[in-house]
Amino acid sequence: MNAEIICIGTELVIGDVLNTSSQYIARKLAQRGLNVFYHTMVGDNPRRMQQIFETAVSRSDLIFITGGLGPTQDDITVQTVCDFFQLPLVENAESLANIKAYFARLGRKLTDNNLKQALVPQGATVFQNALGTAPGCAVEQDGKTVILLPGPPKEMQDMFDRSVEPFLEKYTDGIIRSHFVKIYGTGEAQVDAIMADLESGANPSVAPYAKDGEMYLRVTAKAQDQQQAEQMCTCMIEKIRQRVGDQQIYGIDVESLQQVVVDLLKDKGLTVATAESCTAGYISKRITEIPGSSAVFPMGVSTYSNASKQKLLGVRTDTLRQFGAVSPQTAAQMARGVRLLSGADIGLSITGIAGPDSDGSDKPVGLAYISLSDQSGEYVIKSQKGGFRDREYIRYTSASEALNLLRLYLLTFPQKFENEKFIKFQEKTID
Amino acid sequence: MNAEIICIGTELVIGDVLNTSSQYIARKLAQRGLNVFYHTMVGDNPRRMQQIFETAVSRSDLIFITGGLGPTQDDITVQTVCDFFQLPLVENAESLANIKAYFARLGRKLTDNNLKQALVPQGATVFQNALGTAPGCAVEQDGKTVILLPGPPKEMQDMFDRSVEPFLEKYTDGIIRSHFVKIYGTGEAQVDAIMADLESGANPSVAPYAKDGEMYLRVTAKAQDQQQAEQMCTCMIEKIRQRVGDQQIYGIDVESLQQVVVDLLKDKGLTVATAESCTAGYISKRITEIPGSSAVFPMGVSTYSNASKQKLLGVRTDTLRQFGAVSPQTAAQMARGVRLLSGADIGLSITGIAGPDSDGSDKPVGLAYISLSDQSGEYVIKSQKGGFRDREYIRYTSASEALNLLRLYLLTFPQKFENEKFIKFQEKTID
Repeated sequence: MNAEIICIGTELVIGDVLNTSSQYIARKLAQRGLNVFYHTMVGDNPRRMQQIFETAVSRSDLIFITGGLGPTQDDITVQTVCDFFQLPLVENAESLANIKAYFARLGRKLTDNNLKQALVPQGATVFQNALGTAPGCAVEQDGKTVILLPGPPKEMQDMFDRSVEPFLEKYTDGIIRSHFVKIYGTGEAQVDAIMADLESGANPSVAPYAKDGEMYLRVTAKAQDQQQAEQMCTCMIEKIRQRVGDQQIYGIDVESLQQVVVDLLKDKGLTVATAESCTAGYISKRITEIPGSSAVFPMGVSTYSNASKQKLLGVRTDTLRQFGAVSPQTAAQMARGVRLLSGADIGLSITGIAGPDSDGSDKPVGLAYISLSDQSGEYVIKSQKGGFRDREYIRYTSASEALNLLRLYLLTFPQKFENEKFIKFQEKTID
Repeated sequence: MNAEIICIGTELVIGDVLNTSSQYIARKLAQRGLNVFYHTMVGDNPRRMQQIFETAVSRSDLIFITGGLGPTQDDITVQTVCDFFQLPLVENAESLANIKAYFARLGRKLTDNNLKQALVPQGATVFQNALGTAPGCAVEQDGKTVILLPGPPKEMQDMFDRSVEPFLEKYTDGIIRSHFVKIYGTGEAQVDAIMADLESGANPSVAPYAKDGEMYLRVTAKAQDQQQAEQMCTCMIEKIRQRVGDQQIYGIDVESLQQVVVDLLKDKGLTVATAESCTAGYISKRITEIPGSSAVFPMGVSTYSNASKQKLLGVRTDTLRQFGAVSPQTAAQMARGVRLLSGADIGLSITGIAGPDSDGSDKPVGLAYISLSDQSGEYVIKSQKGGFRDREYIRYTSASEALNLLRLYLLTFPQKFENEKFIKFQEKTID
């Protein structure tokens, strides 16, 4: 059964209002395994509306229309549907009572326009509007089902959850389950190459998304019951895990890298303090996005100036002079410094060049050194972000790199932390 | 000239990702007086894509297509357009160089998939991608213009502003100029009431937008030449300034509150250091978003734990015990503490309850105290954000409140800073 969604409203078409209803309905339909192939937005124009509606009926079985049910003369949806199916309009008593009660509550005067909203196509299943005046309805005729919903997103969502969901039960064929596999450290083209044979229209299907330096794979299975759908997803996720690598997958259905890091810190009973230069608070801000992060994050510092790196963290003058602020040596001293200053188990530091300009040396924009310090010493990695990306992207993805280093450390803990990317220092260049 | 917009992507059609590109393009076209009548979303399916494209060409003159330009096998937009107009694909040398440079900079291996992105329809006007690999282009044939843009919103928007806007000049009838008046500290309903008589379809038009606790008014004038359009905008902005208030308007066409703050600090030759509890790096992160902020921002601290407030900032134990961490007294000691620690001219602090849970006291979620310290003493204000909003909103808007306090201080500097919102302390409750 194929569905499509039409959203009516000149305010949508000219870009004054963002269309969120389309996504809301599409998600609900995807959860039911109903295919959605087309979404259309069109203004409050009878001719264009009619043309779009006729196209929709010709190619889809289940058509959702939002908007165009209001009390003004522009609201033309009900009329278009009635004309097409040659259905008369009839007054719905419950809707009329609803509208009268609504206006009485607000102490507003009822107009003829408002009363017009109580008219619905004959034979339709009527959905009452708990948050406004316009009722919705479903018209079933000639093997097609047309569902009319109000335009304001809150009214539409409330009506959908309350009335449309139960109405749709009869169309749901099987069960759909989706899971997100979240990947750090493997690029889009790389993941695509690894997963190419799995990405076609198979069941379960695998769809890749790239966002802010990370990759998500959505695994969707369709089956007769929930248990079977879940099992199909589990098998596919295991296959992905084998191909992409265990450590690259930072979570299934998890919110974010920082959520995983905070959870791991809690699990291992460890605390972290941050010392940031180029990202200057971005790592700290992301860790403390997570409710309850105060249990694992006592403090962070944004040591933007060299003087603050020296004063707060004890970075040595000769280190800054010899290697510069953006160096593995400075990163290591920052991480150790903030660990000792805070009393946290782990110090996490970053120093780099966020751009758009370089720091006057020959170091490229997007370069950063990231260090993690524990009682046994300091680990340092080099990170190079950027390409053509902007300062925001460089800062965000550099912060992600630091969070990911911490994640890998915590996964290993209390085993010794090993990674082929660690920078080996010449003797005595840290201290 | 009629335009329409097609957004390609299965992730859009099934509701995984909200389509924001459609609105972005529609607004830009509305500003130019180009009519948009239809928006369509369709998945990465060649047959359906072809059918939607043919319909679009049959009814519109100017067709925008976003998405389907990526390196994966699903990306089919260029092929569809070439098939329709019977155009061969040719390699674009600049795009190829762009892609190679992009991968070289990231140190990633280039795949054949990536190279495919350098192919464009013969004769097309190519738009280089400053933030990614896929170029965009415009194909002009048989009286139709088709503009292909990348799917990721940041890449699409950057390309639109940089390359598509100039390209569209030839389709624009008259000159349109727009300016954004950015307002802090006056709510949407308030602005709406003040501006009601100006907001209709007049020329210049005034359109209000509310975003993350701020208000923007877009002033758009249409005229025969640029000078006249600019003059019309200037008059309207002056009218808005008189009604909304001079201090409430933080800038015209400025990027952000933090941009204004950094500029003011530079102008006045002052530096600021931050001490954050509930926002834990958000203010620091926002100040350092601005290139060159290192000249005015030596350091910040995220003192999340009470121990770190005491150790780093010298907040007194009896203050924390008597008034709590979320109190005007603690805020004032934090601001003074970070000013003295950093040697900056100004200390800016915030301590509050970001939620979702309260701190166990009877203080409400969203409450924060914000303090600014200079040589003459400490100023403190109370902020209450939230309502039904989430942790992210509370943290963002509380950080904005702190940035705005700093802005008002800097506007006044070196005059004495006065504000009716300042909290007056009982004698000796700060020290």
